[in-house]
Amino acid sequence: MEKLGTTIGSWTGKDLLSTEQLNAENVKYLFQVADHMKEMVARQGGDDTLKGKVMANVFFEPSTRTSCSFQTAMLRLGGAVVCVNESSSSSQKGETLHDTMRCLECYGDVTVLRHPTKGAAATAAAASRKPVLNAGDGVGEHPTQALLDLYTIYKEAKLSEMNLTGKVITMVGDLKNGRTVHSLAKLLAHFKVTLNYVSPESLKMPSYIVDELNAIGIKQKETSNLESVLASSDVLYITRVQKERFDTVAEYEAVKDSFIITSTTLTKAKSTMILMHPLPRVNEIAVEVDNDPRAAYFRQMEYGMYVRMAILALVLGKA
Amino acid sequence: MEKLGTTIGSWTGKDLLSTEQLNAENVKYLFQVADHMKEMVARQGGDDTLKGKVMANVFFEPSTRTSCSFQTAMLRLGGAVVCVNESSSSSQKGETLHDTMRCLECYGDVTVLRHPTKGAAATAAAASRKPVLNAGDGVGEHPTQALLDLYTIYKEAKLSEMNLTGKVITMVGDLKNGRTVHSLAKLLAHFKVTLNYVSPESLKMPSYIVDELNAIGIKQKETSNLESVLASSDVLYITRVQKERFDTVAEYEAVKDSFIITSTTLTKAKSTMILMHPLPRVNEIAVEVDNDPRAAYFRQMEYGMYVRMAILALVLGKA
Amino acid sequence: MEKLGTTIGSWTGKDLLSTEQLNAENVKYLFQVADHMKEMVARQGGDDTLKGKVMANVFFEPSTRTSCSFQTAMLRLGGAVVCVNESSSSSQKGETLHDTMRCLECYGDVTVLRHPTKGAAATAAAASRKPVLNAGDGVGEHPTQALLDLYTIYKEAKLSEMNLTGKVITMVGDLKNGRTVHSLAKLLAHFKVTLNYVSPESLKMPSYIVDELNAIGIKQKETSNLESVLASSDVLYITRVQKERFDTVAEYEAVKDSFIITSTTLTKAKSTMILMHPLPRVNEIAVEVDNDPRAAYFRQMEYGMYVRMAILALVLGKA
Repeated sequence: MEKLGTTIGSWTGKDLLSTEQLNAENVKYLFQVADHMKEMVARQGGDDTLKGKVMANVFFEPSTRTSCSFQTAMLRLGGAVVCVNESSSSSQKGETLHDTMRCLECYGDVTVLRHPTKGAAATAAAASRKPVLNAGDGVGEHPTQALLDLYTIYKEAKLSEMNLTGKVITMVGDLKNGRTVHSLAKLLAHFKVTLNYVSPESLKMPSYIVDELNAIGIKQKETSNLESVLASSDVLYITRVQKERFDTVAEYEAVKDSFIITSTTLTKAKSTMILMHPLPRVNEIAVEVDNDPRAAYFRQMEYGMYVRMAILALVLGKA
Repeated sequence: MEKLGTTIGSWTGKDLLSTEQLNAENVKYLFQVADHMKEMVARQGGDDTLKGKVMANVFFEPSTRTSCSFQTAMLRLGGAVVCVNESSSSSQKGETLHDTMRCLECYGDVTVLRHPTKGAAATAAAASRKPVLNAGDGVGEHPTQALLDLYTIYKEAKLSEMNLTGKVITMVGDLKNGRTVHSLAKLLAHFKVTLNYVSPESLKMPSYIVDELNAIGIKQKETSNLESVLASSDVLYITRVQKERFDTVAEYEAVKDSFIITSTTLTKAKSTMILMHPLPRVNEIAVEVDNDPRAAYFRQMEYGMYVRMAILALVLGKA
Repeated sequence: MEKLGTTIGSWTGKDLLSTEQLNAENVKYLFQVADHMKEMVARQGGDDTLKGKVMANVFFEPSTRTSCSFQTAMLRLGGAVVCVNESSSSSQKGETLHDTMRCLECYGDVTVLRHPTKGAAATAAAASRKPVLNAGDGVGEHPTQALLDLYTIYKEAKLSEMNLTGKVITMVGDLKNGRTVHSLAKLLAHFKVTLNYVSPESLKMPSYIVDELNAIGIKQKETSNLESVLASSDVLYITRVQKERFDTVAEYEAVKDSFIITSTTLTKAKSTMILMHPLPRVNEIAVEVDNDPRAAYFRQMEYGMYVRMAILALVLGKA
């Protein structure tokens, strides 16, 4: 796994495959670049930073949000985008991911890869001389999502520095199956936060993550009762709870309502709390909540674009 | 429904959802801008008017023509395009159109939407702070098609002003189910034209449109006999007649030939008549007619690009 | 079939439909332009040569490789791309290829067409005033593939001039059904090479090609034994052999192993031999071979981009 640092040179030509590559220092550096991107977009929409560069946007699974976010990030920096998806791809002719990557690197300067198989991003990176950005590989990692989530907290909390010490982050929903919350928990661990995990018994945060964070002194609390931790939360991070993930219907019925956020829920929360969701939502957050100033989930999408602009500029050596 | 005027400021940031927003004055203004676009493209192919702007091109129904036309319009103005279609979209994960729009506005500056459901464009516009352009919503509206049709008449008739008073426009085919002819008839009503509707009995122009235009003094004539109005027509607007729309096979057999335009048909028409079709055609117009100078249907596509360039530039405040 | 020459004017506005349009002189000219493209990309990634131009990239069959190659070629020259594929196309509404092309020429400046039907490119070109580039039409032609194959030989052999006299090119695999080897053989015939055809009896090079090349004095040898020609080959061009193409399973079993290239195979080949494959490969070449310096098949993809950049620039009059 390649190390990333706090200079452009330490990012240039590198892959971003896993949150394992991230730490407090290189995240702070990335967010400085993201801040510049945000200002530039507000001022002029886009520029020519990546003119002459081509991004291959390779999605072997559909994803409007992540795909559009990466595409727009590249386009606003003056780069060009070529899209490959499963139906148009030669993988249907039996081509290996290795060969697909070897071909794409002949045309493009960087590849964004979404793939249904855990470890696919690492396989792709090993095949390619050009940077590979993992845009989600099955139940594996989704590092740019974790970064945009963290950047959202940084911006919404109006921090002048990335100082999250003592902040209480509460994650809610299916914590077992969501690569998003796994990646985010591990990333937050670099910042001395306190973590609450609210889930039904059968969908708890995997113990290997809890143990890993315990070992480095991160305070964590597991509960199935949202109310018990709501009032003290600085961030409430909601994920989808899918009925079919539960062991029994009875268990689902018992918990489902406590995981739906309504305006009533929010009356018990801090006025400064940040309400997040990786989207798409189905009904975990009532539409009435959208106009609450604490509802950050759509701004979260926008922050994602700036983070991805920063990543693209850095790995292409043009920040 | 937002009002549009005759200054760039009156278009900036607005949606274009319905021909109801259009009148003689703002159409004339739009066509002046379209004329400038036509000249610019002829001179240099494209420019940087919309550099730094991103258009989300969202098609929940396939449409080569309209999609390509909007994409090319944006690209020729130096803007960037991100495409979303049904198969790649999160609507498959149960996301509402409202949420999809809230996300897209985080990345893009304007959204073009084709959707199978009437009213979808208005729903989308209500969700988004950024301009939404209706590219057809089910049996609802298709305002940019009506505008490009009108612009085609303006250019092909070589009018120096948008003066259509007394012009005879004859619409032929399935006038019941075509949103195109509905939108166009309402738009033409601002210009004191005379309208003929040629269709089989079961596929007549809806009475609510006929009544609406009657009320403002537009002369209209309904017939199933094309020959009775052909010689006096300044514009002949052909649409597809689909066999399955007829009540009986006998009725279809009785009329189908009179709705196929051949070189023989055109011998009875004015030498200056403008022959139009929204395309794709199946066999409503014989291929032999394509080389007749009156056949305007392919030029119609090109005019559409200029009209869409003008609309994009205006709603993005850059005309 | 349009003639192409050795000046930009002789390419401007022309179609590229068939290797029949190519000869030693115009190929040399094209490769000079491709060399310039290669240098420019190495120096700066891209430029604005085709700014203001739009390429319609129309694929009625999926093809990652060819589609991405053409898209990237256009984008690196500063042009814009609009993609049309079968699922998004109006051909599903019964539109003819003729009409599709008439529409696309209204928006774009050049059309790249991949189509499952032999002769489709010529039909498309006849319909369009704008240049059409054949990106494969069924069992017909694939001239840009033949050109990129030839350019690969030229670059890998480090020739200062396009002098291939006496070079031995050995084609291996299914020589009956591959449009690629048909096009390439005819193109190579302009350069006084010697050709070996290695295939099972049932998948031999069609006799009409062998006869045509015999008539102009090209030395050709047919065999099913790769080893008999391996040591003397300057180029080894491998294609896929599909089991289902064989008359009997026994015949397949008898030959399949001799058509799989491994490191052992290469021990019997010249140290300067150029190993090529149009890709995607399935298992015709063992992965262990990829690191052999003679393995040119991935570089072949990159050369293809430069060749297509050159073609686009020339037919658009901007080389």
